[in-house]
Amino acid sequence: VHITVINPNTAGAITDTIVAAARAVALSGVEISGTNPAVGVASVESHSEEAWATMGILAEIEHAEAPDRELDQNQQRRSDPKPDAFVIACFGDTGIDAAREAATVPVVGMTEAALFVAATVAHRFTIVTMPTRTVAQSERVVRSLGLGHRCTVRAVDVPVSDLVTGSAHLLPIFAAEARQAMSRDGAEAIILGCAGLADLVEPLGAELGIPVIEGVAAAVSFAAGLVAQRLSTSRASTFAAVPTTPSARELLR
Amino acid sequence: VHITVINPNTAGAITDTIVAAARAVALSGVEISGTNPAVGVASVESHSEEAWATMGILAEIEHAEAPDRELDQNQQRRSDPKPDAFVIACFGDTGIDAAREAATVPVVGMTEAALFVAATVAHRFTIVTMPTRTVAQSERVVRSLGLGHRCTVRAVDVPVSDLVTGSAHLLPIFAAEARQAMSRDGAEAIILGCAGLADLVEPLGAELGIPVIEGVAAAVSFAAGLVAQRLSTSRASTFAAVPTTPSARELLR
Amino acid sequence: VHITVINPNTAGAITDTIVAAARAVALSGVEISGTNPAVGVASVESHSEEAWATMGILAEIEHAEAPDRELDQNQQRRSDPKPDAFVIACFGDTGIDAAREAATVPVVGMTEAALFVAATVAHRFTIVTMPTRTVAQSERVVRSLGLGHRCTVRAVDVPVSDLVTGSAHLLPIFAAEARQAMSRDGAEAIILGCAGLADLVEPLGAELGIPVIEGVAAAVSFAAGLVAQRLSTSRASTFAAVPTTPSARELLR
Amino acid sequence: VHITVINPNTAGAITDTIVAAARAVALSGVEISGTNPAVGVASVESHSEEAWATMGILAEIEHAEAPDRELDQNQQRRSDPKPDAFVIACFGDTGIDAAREAATVPVVGMTEAALFVAATVAHRFTIVTMPTRTVAQSERVVRSLGLGHRCTVRAVDVPVSDLVTGSAHLLPIFAAEARQAMSRDGAEAIILGCAGLADLVEPLGAELGIPVIEGVAAAVSFAAGLVAQRLSTSRASTFAAVPTTPSARELLR
Amino acid sequence: VHITVINPNTAGAITDTIVAAARAVALSGVEISGTNPAVGVASVESHSEEAWATMGILAEIEHAEAPDRELDQNQQRRSDPKPDAFVIACFGDTGIDAAREAATVPVVGMTEAALFVAATVAHRFTIVTMPTRTVAQSERVVRSLGLGHRCTVRAVDVPVSDLVTGSAHLLPIFAAEARQAMSRDGAEAIILGCAGLADLVEPLGAELGIPVIEGVAAAVSFAAGLVAQRLSTSRASTFAAVPTTPSARELLR
Amino acid sequence: VHITVINPNTAGAITDTIVAAARAVALSGVEISGTNPAVGVASVESHSEEAWATMGILAEIEHAEAPDRELDQNQQRRSDPKPDAFVIACFGDTGIDAAREAATVPVVGMTEAALFVAATVAHRFTIVTMPTRTVAQSERVVRSLGLGHRCTVRAVDVPVSDLVTGSAHLLPIFAAEARQAMSRDGAEAIILGCAGLADLVEPLGAELGIPVIEGVAAAVSFAAGLVAQRLSTSRASTFAAVPTTPSARELLR
Repeated sequence: VHITVINPNTAGAITDTIVAAARAVALSGVEISGTNPAVGVASVESHSEEAWATMGILAEIEHAEAPDRELDQNQQRRSDPKPDAFVIACFGDTGIDAAREAATVPVVGMTEAALFVAATVAHRFTIVTMPTRTVAQSERVVRSLGLGHRCTVRAVDVPVSDLVTGSAHLLPIFAAEARQAMSRDGAEAIILGCAGLADLVEPLGAELGIPVIEGVAAAVSFAAGLVAQRLSTSRASTFAAVPTTPSARELLR
Repeated sequence: VHITVINPNTAGAITDTIVAAARAVALSGVEISGTNPAVGVASVESHSEEAWATMGILAEIEHAEAPDRELDQNQQRRSDPKPDAFVIACFGDTGIDAAREAATVPVVGMTEAALFVAATVAHRFTIVTMPTRTVAQSERVVRSLGLGHRCTVRAVDVPVSDLVTGSAHLLPIFAAEARQAMSRDGAEAIILGCAGLADLVEPLGAELGIPVIEGVAAAVSFAAGLVAQRLSTSRASTFAAVPTTPSARELLR
Repeated sequence: VHITVINPNTAGAITDTIVAAARAVALSGVEISGTNPAVGVASVESHSEEAWATMGILAEIEHAEAPDRELDQNQQRRSDPKPDAFVIACFGDTGIDAAREAATVPVVGMTEAALFVAATVAHRFTIVTMPTRTVAQSERVVRSLGLGHRCTVRAVDVPVSDLVTGSAHLLPIFAAEARQAMSRDGAEAIILGCAGLADLVEPLGAELGIPVIEGVAAAVSFAAGLVAQRLSTSRASTFAAVPTTPSARELLR
Repeated sequence: VHITVINPNTAGAITDTIVAAARAVALSGVEISGTNPAVGVASVESHSEEAWATMGILAEIEHAEAPDRELDQNQQRRSDPKPDAFVIACFGDTGIDAAREAATVPVVGMTEAALFVAATVAHRFTIVTMPTRTVAQSERVVRSLGLGHRCTVRAVDVPVSDLVTGSAHLLPIFAAEARQAMSRDGAEAIILGCAGLADLVEPLGAELGIPVIEGVAAAVSFAAGLVAQRLSTSRASTFAAVPTTPSARELLR
Repeated sequence: VHITVINPNTAGAITDTIVAAARAVALSGVEISGTNPAVGVASVESHSEEAWATMGILAEIEHAEAPDRELDQNQQRRSDPKPDAFVIACFGDTGIDAAREAATVPVVGMTEAALFVAATVAHRFTIVTMPTRTVAQSERVVRSLGLGHRCTVRAVDVPVSDLVTGSAHLLPIFAAEARQAMSRDGAEAIILGCAGLADLVEPLGAELGIPVIEGVAAAVSFAAGLVAQRLSTSRASTFAAVPTTPSARELLR
Repeated sequence: VHITVINPNTAGAITDTIVAAARAVALSGVEISGTNPAVGVASVESHSEEAWATMGILAEIEHAEAPDRELDQNQQRRSDPKPDAFVIACFGDTGIDAAREAATVPVVGMTEAALFVAATVAHRFTIVTMPTRTVAQSERVVRSLGLGHRCTVRAVDVPVSDLVTGSAHLLPIFAAEARQAMSRDGAEAIILGCAGLADLVEPLGAELGIPVIEGVAAAVSFAAGLVAQRLSTSRASTFAAVPTTPSARELLR
């Protein structure tokens, strides 16, 4: 089973970090690769940047599933495997509906997958996201799934650029906000509300004594399960293929 | 008060139709112009096409509000007025959150505005949209506003391309679906679930005997009201400006 | 377009204040007049007073739309214009369902209109009402529209009688409560939860830096839009006319 | 324990019918009397009529609880007992919030009480009300209690005036609608959506084989229970007394 | 009317306390007896213990309704009356759905009954339960009824075993939590979130000045009302009898 | 990774069928065993039977995780592996909360897992369960997760005993109901609402052309993912261990 994780921003270093972290908790037999658009935004912290990220996701799916994929642009044989599923590594599950239309294989978002995990390990739980302005994106997913009666959303209000050198230094600020979630919202599990925070899972879990959920890991597992079940996006109506849509890859070239 | 209606597909003829219809029911003192992206999709009937439409909306806002807007690319004085508000003329309110970040003036969606009108003239009401696959887009707006207990969504399942020659020929099919809505869902008003259907307002209303609501007209009125009240999108957090986002206009050039 | 604002309490001075404030932000071509019942309650801060207010609203609509309206009781030609729409200027939209049955033209409530505006300029928002006991009335409208996931209700717990000399002196107490809404509820816009607070719009907005919404202004704009769209209350079922209802005007004479 | 049932329309014959039916299923020790306003509407089938009914309810409460109640207007000793609780016998629980403020004893609505009973004897259930236009009133109570996921509302669309000669002749039409509720909505119990339908409880239940719930009976039982528990409306805030409200009894004299 | 209160834990002393308290506020003509399983758990503070409690409830219903109930195991004539209804005296309404299938008479839970009372005496209200871990059980009932928009759940985090010597000593801690509910959640009534707290009703009510609701008392009244109305659980589908279920009484012997 | 599937009824043949089907779609490296209680009910089609099933689940967890598990009752070395996670193979996720308290490893229900899958492959979806009386159990899970706006529940009304000889013969009846779900509810995926229906996945999917989801397969994948992510049930509060609960295994011996 091969899962391709799409980081919809252009920060390749973050992509590598995300993939490495996902591999560390992958089931045996699950191979993970990562990709990100070459053109777009350095991080996704707003709805405008989500517009770019969505286009980038469509471009990466198009590239990964290209019918002529055997040879790359230089007529070299491509070494990247054809994915069995995609994971969107952007909190808020940016562009996931469009991705489901575009891909011929299942697509899983890190936010939805994290919420599913939380709902099976805790009665109430809290997303701790980074910039306060992105609370709305988290709430969008919570609302779409209907989990508002069990999930709150909080923010540490740190820009995503703070993750360039890893996330370990954010432990105190995440722990403080998570403790507020535990005492005020009754949270029994914490969802890390951003990709690139895998470093926090272990130390934060140790400090809080409750499950700390990282969405990319959750999504990779979930996607592998869909592949094993031979299930993919329903093509009946909402997510039917749209062959007439122009090439996102051409646009972002 | 000047309102610019953005049709996010590339069909200029539809833009003209929409603007003409909106002008016919505009309040005195409200001027309406229309625009659409030169690059993008011919119609918006899927999430993938919404990705293109969103980029197109951002490009049009950028163009309309360009700081150097006095002169156009050929160094000619531009004749289009600087808008006091934007209206998104695409059912499902495609890209509206990004538009709110990008614009310095208020942005109103045709779907939300139609729902507000419906909620003031009827206890229960129904959106009749066109392609069945876009029911999800209508439901997204209904869910975001919380009106699911009063609003149902139905579709006539006709492609949007059928509107090229106007919508009058769709009267029987819309009337049939609306009658279902009245008898089964208790609908007391009908929302036309697509831009470009203004021709249907009068004959359908006459046939059904209940209010028939056209979203662009509703949105233009609403936007004019926001301008009069001197209100615009809150910049406090969710919709704060994002100056670092790349130029959508450059992308779609 | 002529809009009649009905203040359902008997305080004519408040009516004048409300109308003046509404005129200051009206679209060109929109004329506004005000009226209030001669018999009833001095302010509406409870459900019992809402009963009186509702009867007063019905009486005023009856009077404004009287078929024999050309001559008044003294056989003098009446100078007040026949309204194209009514606005209910009482937070909680007291009696609005009955008003929709009684009137032949559209009726808009200040609370619903303010909520519509808030939903287009902010992700989350808060009503700051005056007496704590009226929180239930605000919540009634929020619940009816389904906006509970985006709107909180708070109160400064000041009696409405404090507005006799204007509302400017309430700025500090409103600002304090609004700041709580911003920090605790994530409010990005504030709705003034009482008629007669228009004086606060500008200074409170300046102090908070977020939109401050006044419901009568919002409702007048919205009502004018309905008139332009040639839409009125659906007569299909819930709000069909009830010709056998006795005269409220006779009752309150 | 003495319960006064307030029929808010002016049809005294209906009041007698309602009281007789309620007595037939009252707990031992519970005495029931009935009253209705002398001035108002003959039946309550609209929001406008609810305005009159609310005023009538306030007048009847005022009369029943008058501090000088020992002597009537003719200086005769009054024979009616001071109520320990009031029941509002109008589907939709018209005016109940105002009644809770006005009364010094508990007030129970027939709709809320019927819904409580339904929720304890069935997983899903349906209100079958009479005029279709009053569906909104039933839904108002369902929504206020939050039972929309378990309760549907249907109507036989018969005017309330059809009850003048009793309700037995409506058995076939109620049975037909109830069967629709059973097969389409999964209803396992039926709530009779109008006062004055007690005659239907037994034959309809026999025909359908599921519980048929009559709201006045439910409310009288519930009210008696509140009295036994020594509980009444909270005066803390929403339903605090409003001593300054004018006399409804004077108004309707 | 005879109501049997089932305390699903094995603490007979608590059963006696509960029954005594219920009798003190019963309507005239309502007789109350109590029972509890001989085998099971000493208190119900978790989902695992609820499994045992449910089995105990089924055993007690089976015993009380045994077809051969005239003679007990020692061939002595049984003195306990055949119940007309059952009340489940365990906050969270443990096992109530199974009980409704098993019993031939109505079954009422103390949590649902308390919530019904609260909804008729207050706009907003709060359950104050004991162990924090049982908040989920309270929320389960609130969610099932749909009252989440009006009801919050809080806990004093005291083990139920603290009730062995009565509950009077818990007054300060309950009062403190209730005051938080009043100031932060707008609570206008308090529901005692555990059986065996009847001692607190009067002093807590006196201290807070708002209604304090005890669920067993509420449920006994409600159950008596169902009997008077000749209503019992619908056998149509969800709660149809399940004659093949093995004997719980044999299991717990 | 070793997953133990608990079939909570006593039909060992069904257990074998379920395990075989789950293995057929398991990820590599995931081993699956099955177990069922020796004492209990032959199938779980009611709340009473769920009480027995819950006790059976607790007994099986206790047995599988026994601290002295190395030797069996006959002092023979046990060959069954210690599970890394449990799956509850009963639609409605019977007893799952108690199981989460009892187990030291994660527990996943087939219903919740199927719903998670459905939410990632379809906009709207439908559970098709077997006995109509168990619709309430399905709706309990849908409600707990909040997916009621996207999921409907239907039943073919066939007793579970019909599965003794497999489920292939039920294809026509399931297909018919699923087609109703597609045309009336807009379902784009179908969830098989009972364990033991794996035979239907392929032919039903082929006939309908949309995803058909089998919950045990979904749950096994999900559970394996939790193990890979090193996550288990939060012990903070709701699901903390309850060491004092008596032995279910002793009870069902």
